[in-house]
Amino acid sequence: MREPTKIVVIGGGACGPKAACRARRCDSQAKITIIEQGELMSCAGCGLTYYISGVVEGRDSLVARTPLYFKKVMDIDVLTRTQVLDINRGTHQVETLNLKTGQGAVIDYDKLVLATGATPIIPPVEGHNLKGIFTLKTVEDADGILGFVASQKVQKAVIVGAGLIGIEAAEALVSRGVNVTVVDVLHWVLQTLLDAEVAALLTRHLEEKGVSLLLSQKLLGFEGDKGGKVRWVVTEKDRVETDIVLLAIGVRPNVKLAQDAGLAMGTSGAISVNDYLETSDPDIYAGGDCVENTSLITGLKVYAPMGSTANKHGRTIGTNVTGGRDRFPGVLGTIMLKAFDYNVGRVGLSENEAREAGFEVVTALVPARDHAGYYPGAEEILVKLVADANTHVILGGQIVGRGEAAKRNDVLATALAFGCQAETLANLDLGYAPPYNSAMDPLQHAANVILNKCSGLAKALSPAEVKTKMDRGEDFIFLDVRELNEWQEWRIEAPQVKLLPQGVLREQLDKLPKDKEIVTLCLRSVRAYHAQRTLEGAGFRDVKFMDGSLIAWPYETVGNGDDKR
Amino acid sequence: MREPTKIVVIGGGACGPKAACRARRCDSQAKITIIEQGELMSCAGCGLTYYISGVVEGRDSLVARTPLYFKKVMDIDVLTRTQVLDINRGTHQVETLNLKTGQGAVIDYDKLVLATGATPIIPPVEGHNLKGIFTLKTVEDADGILGFVASQKVQKAVIVGAGLIGIEAAEALVSRGVNVTVVDVLHWVLQTLLDAEVAALLTRHLEEKGVSLLLSQKLLGFEGDKGGKVRWVVTEKDRVETDIVLLAIGVRPNVKLAQDAGLAMGTSGAISVNDYLETSDPDIYAGGDCVENTSLITGLKVYAPMGSTANKHGRTIGTNVTGGRDRFPGVLGTIMLKAFDYNVGRVGLSENEAREAGFEVVTALVPARDHAGYYPGAEEILVKLVADANTHVILGGQIVGRGEAAKRNDVLATALAFGCQAETLANLDLGYAPPYNSAMDPLQHAANVILNKCSGLAKALSPAEVKTKMDRGEDFIFLDVRELNEWQEWRIEAPQVKLLPQGVLREQLDKLPKDKEIVTLCLRSVRAYHAQRTLEGAGFRDVKFMDGSLIAWPYETVGNGDDKR
Repeated sequence: MREPTKIVVIGGGACGPKAACRARRCDSQAKITIIEQGELMSCAGCGLTYYISGVVEGRDSLVARTPLYFKKVMDIDVLTRTQVLDINRGTHQVETLNLKTGQGAVIDYDKLVLATGATPIIPPVEGHNLKGIFTLKTVEDADGILGFVASQKVQKAVIVGAGLIGIEAAEALVSRGVNVTVVDVLHWVLQTLLDAEVAALLTRHLEEKGVSLLLSQKLLGFEGDKGGKVRWVVTEKDRVETDIVLLAIGVRPNVKLAQDAGLAMGTSGAISVNDYLETSDPDIYAGGDCVENTSLITGLKVYAPMGSTANKHGRTIGTNVTGGRDRFPGVLGTIMLKAFDYNVGRVGLSENEAREAGFEVVTALVPARDHAGYYPGAEEILVKLVADANTHVILGGQIVGRGEAAKRNDVLATALAFGCQAETLANLDLGYAPPYNSAMDPLQHAANVILNKCSGLAKALSPAEVKTKMDRGEDFIFLDVRELNEWQEWRIEAPQVKLLPQGVLREQLDKLPKDKEIVTLCLRSVRAYHAQRTLEGAGFRDVKFMDGSLIAWPYETVGNGDDKR
Repeated sequence: MREPTKIVVIGGGACGPKAACRARRCDSQAKITIIEQGELMSCAGCGLTYYISGVVEGRDSLVARTPLYFKKVMDIDVLTRTQVLDINRGTHQVETLNLKTGQGAVIDYDKLVLATGATPIIPPVEGHNLKGIFTLKTVEDADGILGFVASQKVQKAVIVGAGLIGIEAAEALVSRGVNVTVVDVLHWVLQTLLDAEVAALLTRHLEEKGVSLLLSQKLLGFEGDKGGKVRWVVTEKDRVETDIVLLAIGVRPNVKLAQDAGLAMGTSGAISVNDYLETSDPDIYAGGDCVENTSLITGLKVYAPMGSTANKHGRTIGTNVTGGRDRFPGVLGTIMLKAFDYNVGRVGLSENEAREAGFEVVTALVPARDHAGYYPGAEEILVKLVADANTHVILGGQIVGRGEAAKRNDVLATALAFGCQAETLANLDLGYAPPYNSAMDPLQHAANVILNKCSGLAKALSPAEVKTKMDRGEDFIFLDVRELNEWQEWRIEAPQVKLLPQGVLREQLDKLPKDKEIVTLCLRSVRAYHAQRTLEGAGFRDVKFMDGSLIAWPYETVGNGDDKR
């Protein structure tokens, strides 16, 4: 009988324990050890903001597994409060330090797994060490924030960073009655994930919920009170008083051990691994937040740390350290986020990213109800699709609104994994019954808009393009083809706007000049597109519709429209 | 300038109007006419059961469009209450009869669209003409049922057919306080859609909601009272008193016009069309419930009438009758159904269908919560995956439970359209945040079970296989590895059952005989699978786990388990 394989896993977050458990199921004889620097392991990091808000009750529910469980059920040794000081690739050993006892030790490995995770970035500005400035990565961080909020009677908070954690944390603190201001140097919320026009709708919603946003503002530093507690957040343009600060500007992969051991680093700064999650040393694997991934869209390396990816990495590594050969193909940058009453999803490339990557891009902006309008509870979502104008391959999507977005986002993620063309998306046999969908899913409607644009049938301007024309005072007709009662309830007001309901449009064509530029709009752009076709059919020469129409219009309106989206 | 194309559409349901509108957008000059036999057009047939239940208020919301709308906005002529008597392919004409005036007419076409729909099947049994026996296909049908229920003070209803309409109608009538019995000659509910083990859980739920099911019972006929009103439903085994009967045993495509015109019929009995939805006459297209489709899994022709498919057909036809060349590739048999508190989805082939189609099949039966367990509102779903054991290509899936099923069903539908392998499904970059999912989607968990079975790591028996062994009194150990408190709350009772919680299993291996067959179980089969691996690692020779474990076990149990699923 051969010697049991010695597997050492560094890191007790998501990837490490998953790799260890999978290894155990594949190899009942292996000697498996997990080494974790902290006190806790297997924590649900993605649940921390819900623990802060109180939606998740009790920290215990965030701790999936204890070291005792690993020992008794999995036959896996777990060393908590233990730091790995060094990896000796030559002797296949790691040098450890017990942080409780101060004792050092050396542990042999045949296969080593680096699941060292990531650390929140602290901006190198003045005052970043003041009391009351937090990051949020561990259960201990969350406990610290909750304790501080309670003991210091926190009423005002500043969150630095309008990314995923920043927005989730804003909701959590608002739900605790705290006045929240979010500061970011970028120009819109989730700028690295969403295009401006989609983010603009989310911004409206956040502001409606009482979140103050200070965007395009570089953070200069923090000022404290006499007790050394943070009191002011100073940006280029503002000086904001606060009781607490949460830094949420992203994370940096923990790569020091790997670097010191001479393992290859990727262009993103994270550990470089191949599709089998091997590092440059074939006996060392790495996964989770410390490695970079391959984009399935561009083939380029990206740093996109996600709990879901870390779990999949763990399974792949557990298989491969026990003699298997599983592949992890890559990621799509898929995100789902709850932001107050909005569901926000995105996958693949944004329009910005697609253009930067050199694609000739066509987009669709489609508002739709999330299921049959006549069935109770239908809510609005806005779908943006980004496609390659030449091949019709879908490159990315964004979905935002009160309605069901997670399903559409996952359908897109699945489609993108296969290089799906708009033609195929439009005809997918998706499930239909009135409580769940309309006969055509909003994604399919959006795919058809892409195809209509590619074939030249549909010609559109985005809301931002129309707004620019209005701001410049350009002379065009902004033709609203909704009914009078809809117009009275909610409309855009501008000198260019003219109402001509679709029911009378064909009869009253003589009211419109044939050679002037006309941009049509309605509520969700279905009627506007039809009006464009009608006018073109009648010989009008310069007609476009406004993509997404009123629902997708994030600028000023008259009337009560925000309750529609 | 060329003559406008004359497009005639027969049928004002879903496909016909969609084809007409799409044709108009593609060709502003075409002369387009829709001919509809009934009074109404563009009705939401899929909403009828919700109109009966009262969930959808007012029949108007089910009528999407009026003839006036088509005329004024779309420039499309609609002839309602008009029957087409004959198609003359030689002269390119249809002969019509105005059912209001009795006047005949002849209409020329360049392109003809057959969207003649389908008609509910009336079983040729005695008494089928009695008053109080209904079918449900049109708004008028629903009005008839509602009127009868109210005027006749209906207290008892029999629904013939435990298919989609039958189950939806059962819910609708129960919600109106009617005692409902469903009769079907088949052996389980939705037998043509679901496998027995999945249907069994749905059956439990229907019975819990007060629906009586009389399955495996051939309908012999109906008996009436003196007034000619239905009173008894007679089957081989039962005689059921009732106030009303709904026949819901399926529909038959309306093909008479096509047949009389000599167009090719398909093997299913519906009109045969190619991928461009052309019939055997290149100037005649057909779509919706009157045509057959291609299965994207088997490549065979199937009759699968669905409102969603009819809409897509309409768009394809509208493009193609105006000079375009769009393809409709085929269907996956996707279904979503709300059945009281359960969401039911299915796509592709059931296990039965896959075996009949000659595949070597491997399946997974995976219960899971629909999002992170620590986030409020998580509910149970049961996922069944069916895959090709040789290629690992996913052939089909079924999802049932109180939890979110529509998303998983649509992800599967998308994956199946691309011949997705289990390896790819397992690693899809699906959206993850606690309100929406767990780090691994239940589908991915199921894909991993498929792979574990293919690699020989996992060995399982289905609940039905275990039940058969128990019923035969076989000598094996049915090893429950849950905790004592779980066992006290809910368990299977049988001589073979033995409790040994996973926390003590490794210490107490000597309590188990090494050579006896052991079947492990837990709540959702995660621990049971791990126990199988643990026991095998310890030298036990004949160990399997029970797929889906207690959650998927539809047979008798002790304790209060049904609230868990």
